[in-house]
Amino acid sequence: MKEKKEQLTTAGYKGTRDFYPEHMRIRNYMFNVMRAVVESYGYEEYDGPMIESLDLYRAKTGDEIVGKQIYDFIDKGGREVAIRPEMTPTLARMVAGKLRELPRPIRWFSFPNLWRYEQPGHGRLREHWQLNVDIFGVDSNSAELEILKLACDILIAFGANKSMFQVKISHRKILDGFFQGMNLDPSKAQEVSKILDKKNKITHDEYLAEIKKTIPNLPDADKSIDAFLSSSLVTLDQIPGISSELIDEIKDFFAKIDKIGLGDIVQFDPSIIRGFDYYTGYIFEIYDSSPKNKRSLYGGGRYDNLIGLFTNDAVSGTGFGLGDVTLQNFLETHDLLPSLGREDIICIPILSEEITAEIFLMADEIRKSGMKCEMFLNPDQKFGKQISLAEKKGFKHILICGPDELTKGIISLKNLELRTQIEIPRSELVPRLLQEFNGKKI
Amino acid sequence: MKEKKEQLTTAGYKGTRDFYPEHMRIRNYMFNVMRAVVESYGYEEYDGPMIESLDLYRAKTGDEIVGKQIYDFIDKGGREVAIRPEMTPTLARMVAGKLRELPRPIRWFSFPNLWRYEQPGHGRLREHWQLNVDIFGVDSNSAELEILKLACDILIAFGANKSMFQVKISHRKILDGFFQGMNLDPSKAQEVSKILDKKNKITHDEYLAEIKKTIPNLPDADKSIDAFLSSSLVTLDQIPGISSELIDEIKDFFAKIDKIGLGDIVQFDPSIIRGFDYYTGYIFEIYDSSPKNKRSLYGGGRYDNLIGLFTNDAVSGTGFGLGDVTLQNFLETHDLLPSLGREDIICIPILSEEITAEIFLMADEIRKSGMKCEMFLNPDQKFGKQISLAEKKGFKHILICGPDELTKGIISLKNLELRTQIEIPRSELVPRLLQEFNGKKI
Repeated sequence: MKEKKEQLTTAGYKGTRDFYPEHMRIRNYMFNVMRAVVESYGYEEYDGPMIESLDLYRAKTGDEIVGKQIYDFIDKGGREVAIRPEMTPTLARMVAGKLRELPRPIRWFSFPNLWRYEQPGHGRLREHWQLNVDIFGVDSNSAELEILKLACDILIAFGANKSMFQVKISHRKILDGFFQGMNLDPSKAQEVSKILDKKNKITHDEYLAEIKKTIPNLPDADKSIDAFLSSSLVTLDQIPGISSELIDEIKDFFAKIDKIGLGDIVQFDPSIIRGFDYYTGYIFEIYDSSPKNKRSLYGGGRYDNLIGLFTNDAVSGTGFGLGDVTLQNFLETHDLLPSLGREDIICIPILSEEITAEIFLMADEIRKSGMKCEMFLNPDQKFGKQISLAEKKGFKHILICGPDELTKGIISLKNLELRTQIEIPRSELVPRLLQEFNGKKI
Repeated sequence: MKEKKEQLTTAGYKGTRDFYPEHMRIRNYMFNVMRAVVESYGYEEYDGPMIESLDLYRAKTGDEIVGKQIYDFIDKGGREVAIRPEMTPTLARMVAGKLRELPRPIRWFSFPNLWRYEQPGHGRLREHWQLNVDIFGVDSNSAELEILKLACDILIAFGANKSMFQVKISHRKILDGFFQGMNLDPSKAQEVSKILDKKNKITHDEYLAEIKKTIPNLPDADKSIDAFLSSSLVTLDQIPGISSELIDEIKDFFAKIDKIGLGDIVQFDPSIIRGFDYYTGYIFEIYDSSPKNKRSLYGGGRYDNLIGLFTNDAVSGTGFGLGDVTLQNFLETHDLLPSLGREDIICIPILSEEITAEIFLMADEIRKSGMKCEMFLNPDQKFGKQISLAEKKGFKHILICGPDELTKGIISLKNLELRTQIEIPRSELVPRLLQEFNGKKI
């Protein structure tokens, strides 16, 4: 009697996804569309290792990530390492490593998978992929102009129109100026930023309580903050602490945004904060306009001192990151995912074992001409069963060629959708298939 | 006085690679060629998570990997997990998870990155990528025939010819039969297989000593082994223990290999063992023929019981894995890597800050027509410097358009290679560029 084996579960690790072919087709489609857009701007793809020294994240990232959310461990050589929770530290390390050789502007992009240890939930996974786009070596707002346009062009390349999303922009120095103008102790600035950043996610009372607790010495802080957050480009000069030079710079930037045709989807909004403290200039967020998916899709901004951890040289960067889950949610919300079928593959069942080699050679000819074909290799299966398998696999065309057809030199091409069938001489097979497929007559 | 900061190293984690754009272009080129070949056979891409439960590897893989070579750790929830050292356990888990829904044959491929903790050395890295190709649900040797042909077609698609590589095939059951024929204790079979597998990597004396130590009760073992290892399809029937049915099956397989045109590169070789003990049928290895890179490039075979860890259902699989480092070594050895330049990108320097928006709109038109262009965004840089940057970046064409040219409506297109220049009216820019590029007149 056989011993009963203990069986393993087929479930994957918590908070991760198995990409079966139908899911992988979506991921590849999304990556390919994004890649085409960023490459049309001259961005070049890079990648780094999945594992980095833990010091790299300790030095840069907020406490929360290094403390609880990072996948860190000690390797078998005693080194403290971590699986990357974000790409920016690796990017900064690589740019710093070859800074003097790299011709500028440096335009780079990547599609890393990132890991965070968090409670899996709506749109929050332990492993996700993220498009990272960055430009280094441009000090003027032309860098932001390009990055903003590129970020919009990505959604437009998926078929989105301008009613589906909105871009909100602010500038890190506005917030800094405002804090100075209200005499906020500089040591409190980061804490208050964080409260403002989450203002819309907590109740108004909770918000007021946090502000009062953090800056008890500024009793009217909430009123100043309200005035600041609701200010526009026109009223910004009424906020104490914000220089007229900065306001002029922002107005110049918005004039350019108008001129390149993005005026109707980009707006100034001082409530844009973004969590990371490394931003030093413009910051932006792109929001889904649908009431069903009302959320920030992605964002970015300018950071000027990212490589300072590695070198005394300085280079200014501007960039953004766009996650695959967020993007897919957006595309599904607006019904922008195309059907990603397998109609382009010709199915060739081997109907008898003895003609295996002949069918292999036929398939080879078809492939060499640039078409795709898949053989069914179980001749014992009934023909009706093979037809239904071909349909289940999403194929539209099936070539019927048994020993008799081979002898006669005539092959039948069946259209599974239209239920039509035509006969093609074996000697003309490839040119006729090419003709039929290119002319879409089949 | 500023405090001197301690700076981090720009070196990546030991045994890993940073893929700067010039390296990433090679990786993408290799993946794209491989993808085109496997997709032309109807294979579909899948992917799984980077981390799996450690049990998945404990249950399947050899001791060496789980013991010392695996990146395992305890996650923050107390689970024993590991970074994948190979893709097969994930593949088996995913196939088992949907076995009854998936129409067969199941043809899948993937490009996972894999991690092994080992001493980095020639061709041995801690992180590498590997094409994995597998077909499930075909019991006849048609599956092996397809996998073999596909494995060869990949090298041919890179421009290799048949003098550059060789395929050697054996069958797991030949080895089993031979062991039975020599009355080897079944408990010693795996150990002896491993010694035979590494026979060519150790000295003959070391080999003899290991054999003697492992099977002291079979004093003539080395002579039997020599006779076995040097046997051909013609002399195989003289080896005790190997059934005539098996020999007929292998002869039938080689007849098919001949018929589909692979006879001159595939040969029978009983010394092919392959390390993994899960193979149950044909096994093969592809060798580089160059004396400079005389080594096994990749290999695979048939395994019949891989999903048995998860389910009582059974499905037969055949597949192989091809690593990126090995492939690149092969391509470099035979000078098969093409130059992967950036000649297709048109460079557009912004020559004056005030025309930024106009140049953005021009670049937009060019991109929308399907061409790529990269702007230089630092108008203060001297023109000569911008030209030399464009050359350093590998661009071949540069559009020259300052405020004067814009007013006159005439743009110059300079060929940096030929040092020629033509003038194009602004209103005809995109159609003229398309014409010039498609006709390769530029």
